[in-house]
Amino acid sequence: MAAIDDAYDPEAFREHGRRLVDGLADYLHAVRRGDGVAVLPWVDPGRSLEHWPAAFPERPDPSPDAVQALLSRVVAESTHLHHPRFVGHQVTAPLPLAALADMVSALLNNGMAVYEMGPVATAMERAVIEWMTAQLGFGPGAGGVLTSGGSVGNLTALLAARQACAGFDAWTDGSHAGPPLAVLASGQTHYCVQRAVQIMGWGVGGAVAVPVDERFRMRPDALEGALDRATGSGRRVIAVVASAASTSTGAFDPLGPIADFCERHGLWLHVDGAHGAAAALSPKYRGLVDGIARANSVVWDAHKMMLMPALVTAVLFRNDASSYEAFAQQASYLFEGRHPSDEWFNGATRTLECTKRMMSLKLYVSLSIHGTAMFGDYVTEMFDMARRFAHRVAYAVDFELAVEPEANIVCFRFIGNGSKGGIELDALQDELRSRVIAAGGFYLVRTALPAGVFLRVTIINPATKDADLIALLDAIREAGGTV
Amino acid sequence: MAAIDDAYDPEAFREHGRRLVDGLADYLHAVRRGDGVAVLPWVDPGRSLEHWPAAFPERPDPSPDAVQALLSRVVAESTHLHHPRFVGHQVTAPLPLAALADMVSALLNNGMAVYEMGPVATAMERAVIEWMTAQLGFGPGAGGVLTSGGSVGNLTALLAARQACAGFDAWTDGSHAGPPLAVLASGQTHYCVQRAVQIMGWGVGGAVAVPVDERFRMRPDALEGALDRATGSGRRVIAVVASAASTSTGAFDPLGPIADFCERHGLWLHVDGAHGAAAALSPKYRGLVDGIARANSVVWDAHKMMLMPALVTAVLFRNDASSYEAFAQQASYLFEGRHPSDEWFNGATRTLECTKRMMSLKLYVSLSIHGTAMFGDYVTEMFDMARRFAHRVAYAVDFELAVEPEANIVCFRFIGNGSKGGIELDALQDELRSRVIAAGGFYLVRTALPAGVFLRVTIINPATKDADLIALLDAIREAGGTV
Repeated sequence: MAAIDDAYDPEAFREHGRRLVDGLADYLHAVRRGDGVAVLPWVDPGRSLEHWPAAFPERPDPSPDAVQALLSRVVAESTHLHHPRFVGHQVTAPLPLAALADMVSALLNNGMAVYEMGPVATAMERAVIEWMTAQLGFGPGAGGVLTSGGSVGNLTALLAARQACAGFDAWTDGSHAGPPLAVLASGQTHYCVQRAVQIMGWGVGGAVAVPVDERFRMRPDALEGALDRATGSGRRVIAVVASAASTSTGAFDPLGPIADFCERHGLWLHVDGAHGAAAALSPKYRGLVDGIARANSVVWDAHKMMLMPALVTAVLFRNDASSYEAFAQQASYLFEGRHPSDEWFNGATRTLECTKRMMSLKLYVSLSIHGTAMFGDYVTEMFDMARRFAHRVAYAVDFELAVEPEANIVCFRFIGNGSKGGIELDALQDELRSRVIAAGGFYLVRTALPAGVFLRVTIINPATKDADLIALLDAIREAGGTV
Repeated sequence: MAAIDDAYDPEAFREHGRRLVDGLADYLHAVRRGDGVAVLPWVDPGRSLEHWPAAFPERPDPSPDAVQALLSRVVAESTHLHHPRFVGHQVTAPLPLAALADMVSALLNNGMAVYEMGPVATAMERAVIEWMTAQLGFGPGAGGVLTSGGSVGNLTALLAARQACAGFDAWTDGSHAGPPLAVLASGQTHYCVQRAVQIMGWGVGGAVAVPVDERFRMRPDALEGALDRATGSGRRVIAVVASAASTSTGAFDPLGPIADFCERHGLWLHVDGAHGAAAALSPKYRGLVDGIARANSVVWDAHKMMLMPALVTAVLFRNDASSYEAFAQQASYLFEGRHPSDEWFNGATRTLECTKRMMSLKLYVSLSIHGTAMFGDYVTEMFDMARRFAHRVAYAVDFELAVEPEANIVCFRFIGNGSKGGIELDALQDELRSRVIAAGGFYLVRTALPAGVFLRVTIINPATKDADLIALLDAIREAGGTV
């Protein structure tokens, strides 16, 4: 066991850790300036396997600098979310302090399934959940859990909805004990909601589409029709899933009118606020989530608009008791036979995970040290900047804005002199995106809307400034040439 | 945005990071010696909320030492998995290097749903999956994914099983398109398997119990009867879930005979090897998982017997194509319309998570630097030590061994002079456990077996030595007094 004793040597940890921290600090300087760093250092996926082969030595690598050499290659070849010109998918450039807190989580490895396996992380989870529910305007009976990502979070919320509203005990007796179930959701809903209903065995028809308006927001006046259609096809509708905001375009479904509908029909209201629940933190933009406090459940990803390293998702319930409905089991080696709500502190009764990472720590530490106002200011500035960028796009004769942004997501396309249309114009967007990424200057993504393929940016890195977005338009123009 | 600029200051990261690394190195020295450190610094759950209130300042905390003060309190009040006398639940004392790698993951925050959002982590995931499948003896057609914990992993595998073996398209058409489904599993199976079938809407009856032998191993000769019973009750059985090893006692179900049964009946064989698949790494103990290469799917948690910080779970498929069956959707903003297997590198097609942590990094780095032999040696030593401890317990007149251990989990109870029995003896175990934990010297857990309540240890920290376990017996004796 000599090798393993060496592997746990605290002095080796100190040495490697110091050098790593120094290297990462230098990296942060360079990447935040953006000079000479390709946002996405593109390597073909097949070739990337040659960079990182499954060729592990049998014995320890004795070279003293092997750790630093390996980790610095990792840093260099990864996608640079801290680069000011990262405007890609909705994952944030995390707070450096949160990354340090995550190292503490990793080293302590408190697994949290039961209180004894993570007393600090459990108390901190309760605290951040309390803070988050208060931000949404939930009352004192609210509660929830942290879980590993929005997909697991939405599934967890829908399991609670199923238990509360199916009209039969689907958990105990199974789907066959009642009619096929369904939720109403717009076609702009994140794919994981569709996935969740199919995981639960409701089939493709388990999510019934509610039409959207011209800005991709669910039409509350279309809910009755969707409900009738679903009921007519033999489905029992148990919930409406609203998006706050949608992924493709950042559209906020109108929560107040949707809540009215749900109350009228006794339906569960679930809000997928993975991205946009954080609007509640911004005095300027909290109107976008008006009505969210009437939801039965809300999913909120802190690794999107709360500057946290992934994954840390809150599943929040207006009535904390709901959170015990999603998973109603006992395991003799974990729990000791009382009602789970007597044991709020034994988290696995309420989360899909048994062991989970002490993910509350990074959020608790960040709120404690950086203060709460910074997060609201951040949301405000990102949403503001998206509006300024959209305005600029709308006024550019060679670009077309897909829709006025509500959040910090902007979809647009390059039309040049307007000579292209249809699939030619679609292909052009993909081609431009590839060229701009390959040149290293930016990372942006794309989406397909009814009108065609659009370029899509999420302005999510606090280091991004208006000038970066102006430069993006110029880079696209340059790539587009005289189209 | 002054506060946020400060929050991203690389020099603040350097300063806090250096001090944190130093503090954690000192902590590792102290906790690995164990002197004066309570393994579980017990605080009543209600009181822990007073230690960590939801009272966050609006503005940044200006005190220069606030970060260190907060994090050192976190470390001090958490459960100490690195303490040699941590013999609690199956979560490992992670390799310090893996914790450093996890900080890199946190800071880079490459979200991995698509290749572009995590090129290095994606290639590394493919590499560690390739290595793990090879360890199990799978052929070149094998593959799989990393996911956030064993519960999500088992659900993922069972979704693939459902798609492959239900006899109808449950994913698309829903549960009502066919008969109620079921898996066969012993009562010793981890609760998350029962949970997974209930999530999928199969009800409590979706897991049909197969009797176990006197050592808590599934009885292959009982499979036919269980299948008949399930079929007779109107269920279509699609899979057998074998445990390698079980959670309560660490029993390995006999995989070879179970695989024979599955082949005979065209059933999917899923092995929950969250804890014990790592036995394949040990030349001495790999016989315990003989037959595992005949499984259709295997779950293997690297945060159990591969010394990783949670969460990092591999879902391994004998036929990699199976991994595309579990989740069969597309999202326009992520994927571009080709068959998912053409895009192995866009991971979200195959994982419950969309965004996920770059969890491959810590495992890839650890295997690269520490070498592979160390992991096998570790498994061998932990399993050996459990046998030595069990031998000692079996020979002690005042203790009773529940069962000869196969893995590194030992269940036993204090019987003192033998005057107690029944619920009195059960209560005594809980009382002794509480006293031993409260005294700070150890952390161990408990489980309920048919014969009653037993104390339960998992020998999982490489720092644990035989002397620690001898001291545990003495501590229990002392707590028990003259019973």
